[in-house]
Amino acid sequence: MLFAVNMDVRIPADLDPQVKADTIAREKAYSQQLQKSGEWRHIWRCAGQYSNLSIFDVADNERLHEILWNLPLFPYMDVQVTPLAQHPSDIALSTD
Amino acid sequence: MLFAVNMDVRIPADLDPQVKADTIAREKAYSQQLQKSGEWRHIWRCAGQYSNLSIFDVADNERLHEILWNLPLFPYMDVQVTPLAQHPSDIALSTD
Amino acid sequence: MLFAVNMDVRIPADLDPQVKADTIAREKAYSQQLQKSGEWRHIWRCAGQYSNLSIFDVADNERLHEILWNLPLFPYMDVQVTPLAQHPSDIALSTD
Amino acid sequence: MLFAVNMDVRIPADLDPQVKADTIAREKAYSQQLQKSGEWRHIWRCAGQYSNLSIFDVADNERLHEILWNLPLFPYMDVQVTPLAQHPSDIALSTD
Amino acid sequence: MLFAVNMDVRIPADLDPQVKADTIAREKAYSQQLQKSGEWRHIWRCAGQYSNLSIFDVADNERLHEILWNLPLFPYMDVQVTPLAQHPSDIALSTD
Amino acid sequence: MLFAVNMDVRIPADLDPQVKADTIAREKAYSQQLQKSGEWRHIWRCAGQYSNLSIFDVADNERLHEILWNLPLFPYMDVQVTPLAQHPSDIALSTD
Amino acid sequence: MLFAVNMDVRIPADLDPQVKADTIAREKAYSQQLQKSGEWRHIWRCAGQYSNLSIFDVADNERLHEILWNLPLFPYMDVQVTPLAQHPSDIALSTD
Amino acid sequence: MLFAVNMDVRIPADLDPQVKADTIAREKAYSQQLQKSGEWRHIWRCAGQYSNLSIFDVADNERLHEILWNLPLFPYMDVQVTPLAQHPSDIALSTD
Amino acid sequence: MLFAVNMDVRIPADLDPQVKADTIAREKAYSQQLQKSGEWRHIWRCAGQYSNLSIFDVADNERLHEILWNLPLFPYMDVQVTPLAQHPSDIALSTD
Amino acid sequence: MLFAVNMDVRIPADLDPQVKADTIAREKAYSQQLQKSGEWRHIWRCAGQYSNLSIFDVADNERLHEILWNLPLFPYMDVQVTPLAQHPSDIALSTD
Repeated sequence: MLFAVNMDVRIPADLDPQVKADTIAREKAYSQQLQKSGEWRHIWRCAGQYSNLSIFDVADNERLHEILWNLPLFPYMDVQVTPLAQHPSDIALSTD
Repeated sequence: MLFAVNMDVRIPADLDPQVKADTIAREKAYSQQLQKSGEWRHIWRCAGQYSNLSIFDVADNERLHEILWNLPLFPYMDVQVTPLAQHPSDIALSTD
Repeated sequence: MLFAVNMDVRIPADLDPQVKADTIAREKAYSQQLQKSGEWRHIWRCAGQYSNLSIFDVADNERLHEILWNLPLFPYMDVQVTPLAQHPSDIALSTD
Repeated sequence: MLFAVNMDVRIPADLDPQVKADTIAREKAYSQQLQKSGEWRHIWRCAGQYSNLSIFDVADNERLHEILWNLPLFPYMDVQVTPLAQHPSDIALSTD
Repeated sequence: MLFAVNMDVRIPADLDPQVKADTIAREKAYSQQLQKSGEWRHIWRCAGQYSNLSIFDVADNERLHEILWNLPLFPYMDVQVTPLAQHPSDIALSTD
Repeated sequence: MLFAVNMDVRIPADLDPQVKADTIAREKAYSQQLQKSGEWRHIWRCAGQYSNLSIFDVADNERLHEILWNLPLFPYMDVQVTPLAQHPSDIALSTD
Repeated sequence: MLFAVNMDVRIPADLDPQVKADTIAREKAYSQQLQKSGEWRHIWRCAGQYSNLSIFDVADNERLHEILWNLPLFPYMDVQVTPLAQHPSDIALSTD
Repeated sequence: MLFAVNMDVRIPADLDPQVKADTIAREKAYSQQLQKSGEWRHIWRCAGQYSNLSIFDVADNERLHEILWNLPLFPYMDVQVTPLAQHPSDIALSTD
Repeated sequence: MLFAVNMDVRIPADLDPQVKADTIAREKAYSQQLQKSGEWRHIWRCAGQYSNLSIFDVADNERLHEILWNLPLFPYMDVQVTPLAQHPSDIALSTD
Repeated sequence: MLFAVNMDVRIPADLDPQVKADTIAREKAYSQQLQKSGEWRHIWRCAGQYSNLSIFDVADNERLHEILWNLPLFPYMDVQVTPLAQHPSDIALSTD
C-alpha cells in the first residue's frame, strides 16, 4: 500500500553540532535500511529545500506511523501524508 | 530530470457530458502515450480526491511545460510543480 | 484500517431540484449500506455546517478511494483524508 | 454531547527530558482515566504526526473545556474543537 | 450553553430578486422569533461586511445545528462555530 | 460603540513562573475593573483554547486601543479586532 | 474616528455591460460626494489591482457600516476594515 | 524603476471562443509592444501554470498601474506586484 | 510616489529591556525626522495591535527600501508594501 | 534552464554578531562568484523586505539545488523555487 510523504526538516539553530551530525547520520542509516528492505520505495530531495518527497510501500497505516515516528529527525520535521491508490490511467493496469 | 506534479481536477458541473467524457478519454490516451515513452514515470491517485501525484522525467523545464500545457484536462486543473534532485540518502547513490 | 474523512458539501445553487433531491437520497442509501456492512464506522454532522466527519474501516487505500469516489455527492464535495493508527494511550491496547 | 478534537503536540526541543517523560506519563494516565469513565470515547493517532483525533462525550462545553485545559500536555498543544451532531444518514437513527 | 457563530453571506449575483427579497424577509422573521425565545442571545453586524457575529444559548449541539441548518440563508452562508465556556475572569463568577 | 475582540494567549514556556503567575493575576484584576466599569461587556472562554472572545463597549478606537495595549498579557497575545454595528434583524431595533 | 478599508472588486464576467457601466458611474459619484463631505478622507488605487485603500473619518462604527453597505459596488467587493488610532510617534501629537 | 509582477490567468470556461482567441491575440500584441519599448523587460512562463513572471522597468507606480490595468486579459487575472530595489550583492554595483 | 506599508512588530520576550527601550526611542526619533521631511506622510496605530499602517511619499523604490531597511525595529518587523497610484474617483483629480 | 527563486532571510536575534557578519560576507562573495560565472543571472532586493528575487540559469535541478544548499545563509532562509519556461509572447522568440 503506497503513501506519499513530504518531510520538511527544521533543525533548531542552537542544536549541539555533534548531536546534529549524529542525528543526520542515524537518519541516513535508518532510511537506507528501509530502502533496502523495500518499504521506502523512493526518496527525492525537493530542489532548494531542506525537504524530501518519499514514497512508502507498507502493510498498513500502523506500519507507516511506526516508520515515521522513529525517524531520528522526526522531532524536527513537519510531515504530510497522502495515501495513494492506483490511477485508472496507469499503464501498469492497462489491458489495451 | 525529475519533477513531482500534483494535479487537482475541478470539472465545472455544467460541462456538456459528451465533452467531459471525450476530454477524459483523450486525457487517458495522452497520459498513457507519455508513460510508454518514459517521460511520465509515475501516476498515482490521491485516495479520496479527484487528484493525482505524478513524477515526470523530462529533458528540461520547457518540455515539462509543453507536456502539462497540452493535457486535455489542463483548463480544469490546479497544478503544483516541485523540481526534484537526488537525495543524499538514496541508496542508488551509495557506494557503502 | 481506519481513516478519518471530512466531507464538505457545496451543491451549486442552480442544480435542478429533482436531481438534487435524488442525489441526496442516493447518498443516504449508499452511506447506510456501507454502515451496515461495517466499513463506514461512524458518521457525524459537524454542527452548523453542511459537512460530516466520518470514520472508515477498510482493507486498504484502494478500497477507501473506491468508496469515496462513488459517493453520489462526490462531485460536490471537498474531501480531506487522514490515515489513523492506534494511539499508545488507547485503553483498548492497555495491559495494565 | 459529542465533540471531535484534534490535538497537535509541539514539545520544545529544550524541555528537560525528565519533565518531558513525566508529563507524557501523566498525560497517558489522565487520558486513560477519562476513557474508562466514558467521556473520552475514542483516541486515534494521526499516522506520521505527533497528533491525535479524539471524540469526547461530555455533558456540555464547560466540561469539555475543563478536560482539555487540564491535559498535562495542554501548554504544548494546538487544539481544534468541532461540535458534532447526529447525521441524518446515521443508521442508528434509522427506522427503515 | 453558549456558542459564538460567525455567518458570512454570499448571495449569488444571479439569484432571482424576488426569491432573494423573500429569503431575506424569512431570515429576519426566523431570527427574531429565536431572539424572542431566548436562544439567539445576540446578533451584531460586522461593520463593512455582509456578515454577523451571533451568540446562541441552546440546550446542546443538536439544537444549535437544527437552528443553523434551517436558516433561510443557510445555503448562501459560510458558518464558523465556536463553543464557549465561562471565563475565570468573568465578574459574574466572582465572589471577591 | 461595540467591538468583538479575540485574544489568543501564548505564554513562552521559559517564562519565570512567578512572573507568569503575577501577570495572570494582574490580567484578571485589570479585566474585572473594566467589566465593572461597563467597558468590557462580555468575556467568554473559547472551549479547549487558551483564548477568549470579548465584547467591548467603548467611546472610540482610541479607547479600545488603550485598553488592549495595557493588558498585562498583551505581549503574549495575538489579537483580532472586529468593529460591530447594529444588525437590522436585532429585535432591540424592532418596532413591529 | 479613522478606519483603513481595503476594497477588492470582483465584477462577474457575465454582468450586463450597461449595468456594469452604470454601477461604476454611481460608485464614483457616491465616493466623490463622501470625499467632499470629509468622511472619505483618502482613496488610493493599489497599483496593478482592481482594489483601493481608503481612509474614512466617521462618527462611529454605525456610520462606517452605513457608508460601505451602500456602495454601489458593495455586492462585488471583498472588504477589510482596520480601526485606526493615533500612533505615539505621530508628529501631530508631539510637543517636543 | 523595477517591479516583479506575477500574473495568474483564469479564463472562464464559458467565455466565447472567438472573444477568447481575440483577447489572447491582443494580449500578445500589447505585451510585445511594451517589450520593444523597453518597459516590459522580461516575461517568463511559470512551468506547468497559466501564469507568468514579468519584470517591468517603469517611471513610477502610476505607469505600472496604467500598463497592467490595460492588459486585455486583466479582467481574468490575479496579479501580485513586488517593488524591487538594487541588491547589495549585485555585481553591477560592485567596485571591488 | 506613494506606498502603503504595514509594519507588525514582534519584539522577542527575552530582549534586554535597556536595548528594547533604546531601540524604541531611536525608532520614534527616526520616524519623526522622516515625517518632518515629508517622506513619511502618515502613521496610524492599528487599534489593538503592535502594528502600524503608514503612507510614504518617496522618490522611488530604492528610497523606500533605504528608509525601511534602516528602521531601528526592522529586525523585529514583518513588513508588507503596497505601491499606490491615483484613484480615478479621487476628487483631487476631478475637473467636474 | 531558468528558475525564479525567492529567498526570505530570518536570522535569529541571538546569533553571534561576528558569526552573523562573517556569514553575510561569505554569502555576498558566494553570490558574486556565481553571478560572474553566469549561473546567477539576476538578484533584486524586494523593497522593504529582507528578501530577494533571483533568476538562475543552470544546467538542471541538481545544479540548482547544489547552489542553493550551499548558500551560507541557507539555514536561515525560506526558499521558494519556480521553474521557468519561454513565454509565447516573448519577443526574443518572435519572427514577426
